[in-house]
Amino acid sequence: MNVLEVIARKRDGREHPAEEIGFLVGAYVRGEVADYQMAAWMMAVCIRGMTAAETLALTEAMVASGEVLDLSAIEGIKVDKHSTGGVGDKVTLVAAPLAAACGVKVPKLSGRALAHTGGTLDKLESVPGLTVELDPDRFIKQVREVGIAVGAQSPRMVPADKLMYALRDVTATVPSLPLIASSIMSKKIAAGADAIVLDVKFGRGAFMPDVAAAEDLAREMVVLGEGARRRTVALVTAMDNPLGRSVGNALEVQEALDALGGEGDAELLDVCLRVTREMCDVARVSADVERVWRSGAGREKFEEMLSAQGGHLERGLPVAPVKVEIPSERDGYVEGIDALEVGLSAAEIGVGRIRKEDRVDPAAGFIITAPVGARVSRGEPLVVVHAQSRELVDRVAARVRNAWRIVDHEVRRPPHVLARVDKDGVSRPD
Amino acid sequence: MNVLEVIARKRDGREHPAEEIGFLVGAYVRGEVADYQMAAWMMAVCIRGMTAAETLALTEAMVASGEVLDLSAIEGIKVDKHSTGGVGDKVTLVAAPLAAACGVKVPKLSGRALAHTGGTLDKLESVPGLTVELDPDRFIKQVREVGIAVGAQSPRMVPADKLMYALRDVTATVPSLPLIASSIMSKKIAAGADAIVLDVKFGRGAFMPDVAAAEDLAREMVVLGEGARRRTVALVTAMDNPLGRSVGNALEVQEALDALGGEGDAELLDVCLRVTREMCDVARVSADVERVWRSGAGREKFEEMLSAQGGHLERGLPVAPVKVEIPSERDGYVEGIDALEVGLSAAEIGVGRIRKEDRVDPAAGFIITAPVGARVSRGEPLVVVHAQSRELVDRVAARVRNAWRIVDHEVRRPPHVLARVDKDGVSRPD
Repeated sequence: MNVLEVIARKRDGREHPAEEIGFLVGAYVRGEVADYQMAAWMMAVCIRGMTAAETLALTEAMVASGEVLDLSAIEGIKVDKHSTGGVGDKVTLVAAPLAAACGVKVPKLSGRALAHTGGTLDKLESVPGLTVELDPDRFIKQVREVGIAVGAQSPRMVPADKLMYALRDVTATVPSLPLIASSIMSKKIAAGADAIVLDVKFGRGAFMPDVAAAEDLAREMVVLGEGARRRTVALVTAMDNPLGRSVGNALEVQEALDALGGEGDAELLDVCLRVTREMCDVARVSADVERVWRSGAGREKFEEMLSAQGGHLERGLPVAPVKVEIPSERDGYVEGIDALEVGLSAAEIGVGRIRKEDRVDPAAGFIITAPVGARVSRGEPLVVVHAQSRELVDRVAARVRNAWRIVDHEVRRPPHVLARVDKDGVSRPD
Repeated sequence: MNVLEVIARKRDGREHPAEEIGFLVGAYVRGEVADYQMAAWMMAVCIRGMTAAETLALTEAMVASGEVLDLSAIEGIKVDKHSTGGVGDKVTLVAAPLAAACGVKVPKLSGRALAHTGGTLDKLESVPGLTVELDPDRFIKQVREVGIAVGAQSPRMVPADKLMYALRDVTATVPSLPLIASSIMSKKIAAGADAIVLDVKFGRGAFMPDVAAAEDLAREMVVLGEGARRRTVALVTAMDNPLGRSVGNALEVQEALDALGGEGDAELLDVCLRVTREMCDVARVSADVERVWRSGAGREKFEEMLSAQGGHLERGLPVAPVKVEIPSERDGYVEGIDALEVGLSAAEIGVGRIRKEDRVDPAAGFIITAPVGARVSRGEPLVVVHAQSRELVDRVAARVRNAWRIVDHEVRRPPHVLARVDKDGVSRPD
């Protein structure tokens, strides 16, 4: 097979046979296809698109480029959960332990903070002593014994995605539905679970701009998951405002503990309980999720998991030396909080990474005291910034304040879960 | 300016401001934009196309990437001539000296053999002692004194084209009208002439597949030339069959000498005289081209040029040790000779290059004894192969024989010059 003919086929808007995509991805990972050739092909994909069959072939070729986790030693239907990324998105920290408490086996591989979005691994690592570097034996053993483990993906899994992701980032080929969907789903499929629950976010703080784009991506990923014989369900959820009341690493672990203990932002709890129910459904586990949540079993499961991964909650979560309130400049109601601005400010004070090599600050972040819908008076705090220095706070204070949109009229919080997608199609909850 | 925004603009089908293209090309040549980024952009150009303004901006940016030849020391209107490449295409060797004999100043920079097409420089170098490496002073002096010089482009001219051309070759981004047109015209504009006559070829042995594509390219190049204030005219000519009676280096120099001496293939002479007339017209030189040709002044001018460049025709052109006739396998009339097959076979025996680093054989080639329209009998030669060894002949014999399409009915040679394009539009000679 000739790489130029493969590139030319997509350039001319024609469909690849599956083996052609397998050849391209394999040769690229082996270094026989150059970055500039892959870049040209990915640009052609961006513009010409791919059929469902092509996208599945790409996903399978990416999976085949590296190791696949064999979870057969774990009994029952194993369920993975994935979010496309948001600001204040601690749904995994709540829903996954709760699902495990309901009896679902949850072997989850997670990611790091990226741009303005947080990373589950970075959040978990704020717990003293905790590790996310679990080798396959330890990972499987923990899922068998505890019911849940959250670890980092091995660099030997889906090397094609690592290379292609980095290349897309520098060639303006990121916004392509088939490339995004295959990138996510190849990792989920290689991670070995039998079923996958996806949280596809849209809006200011997400990578998908609007609900239509998020639904398209959800549909594409469900088709890929089912095509690879994984039961797959996606919720399409809003990410215009940060989710819940905190943005940070330790701060979000604490919020998750509180939410699992029965206290928490109504919207956050709603999303988490819905995700947990979907995880139970795809696992064919019948459980009264709300009753389990109220019982505190989810919080116990979370603590058990943290402890199994070496975490010592009893030593206390890290606390930032500086806490500064950002006051409102006017009276009114919070209409919206720009999640992108909050996320970028968070990255700036160390919650996430501006550059890949940056280290995150486990203690830094924001506690939102005036969420969407709240009534605020001039001088009252909108948010408390937790940081290593006053200097860092000053650097982001204006930007954070300006993220709050305050209006004169009362505000109702908009609906949060906009659609549910499974192999039978899209449904829209009220 | 951000390279990702530039690439994204073309990806999304929007138009580049001129300065954006200038930034991209400049940064690429300085190594600040990577090959994979340029490849992604060029693929987007391939699929999305470019406006006339964008293509002109690209051409000017490419010209600005290197040195521009200053020909102001040569009096009068300097005329360049360019062919898009063909098989047996010795038009430059005939038309350019003839135009010089008519009084036109012809400073011509030429190219090497590429794939199945021949290269004027390789042909000229078959003359013993001749050099095409003329530094600017020598080049200009020769045009002033002899009226014509044919040299190699300096590597300091249009470095952007060299890089982009090599990258297009390995990323399936060759067939893009704006990229082809800007590549050719940037070199012509940097070469400094005031007027340009283009021979745009189409058909089996050319890079443009059909007359419509060739006309499109011709129009695009005329617009670019005029946009850069160069009087520009293009002829659109057929290249389904090899042009004239020989394919080779020394063999084509000999055919050009013969044609300038008054003897030659009617079609070849027709194209050459038309090109010469166009060169005289754009130079505002009024000459009776046919009379000058019949006088032998063109041949004298050609010999004078060869001699000025160090050539010694009197030592004799190189002769191949092996000459083998390829006989016809049947009686009939030659309907066509597949120029691509002939060109590739020629490259195989050393006329051109399979790989860039190959050395050409000055003596190798084909003498066509049965041109299109000829009546042949079984056993009569179609062509004589000149090569370094019998082995090389055997390697191409079947392919060369099969290039001849022989039919039972008489064949008329098809029209050869299909269109003429200038700034006022397209006209089609009868």
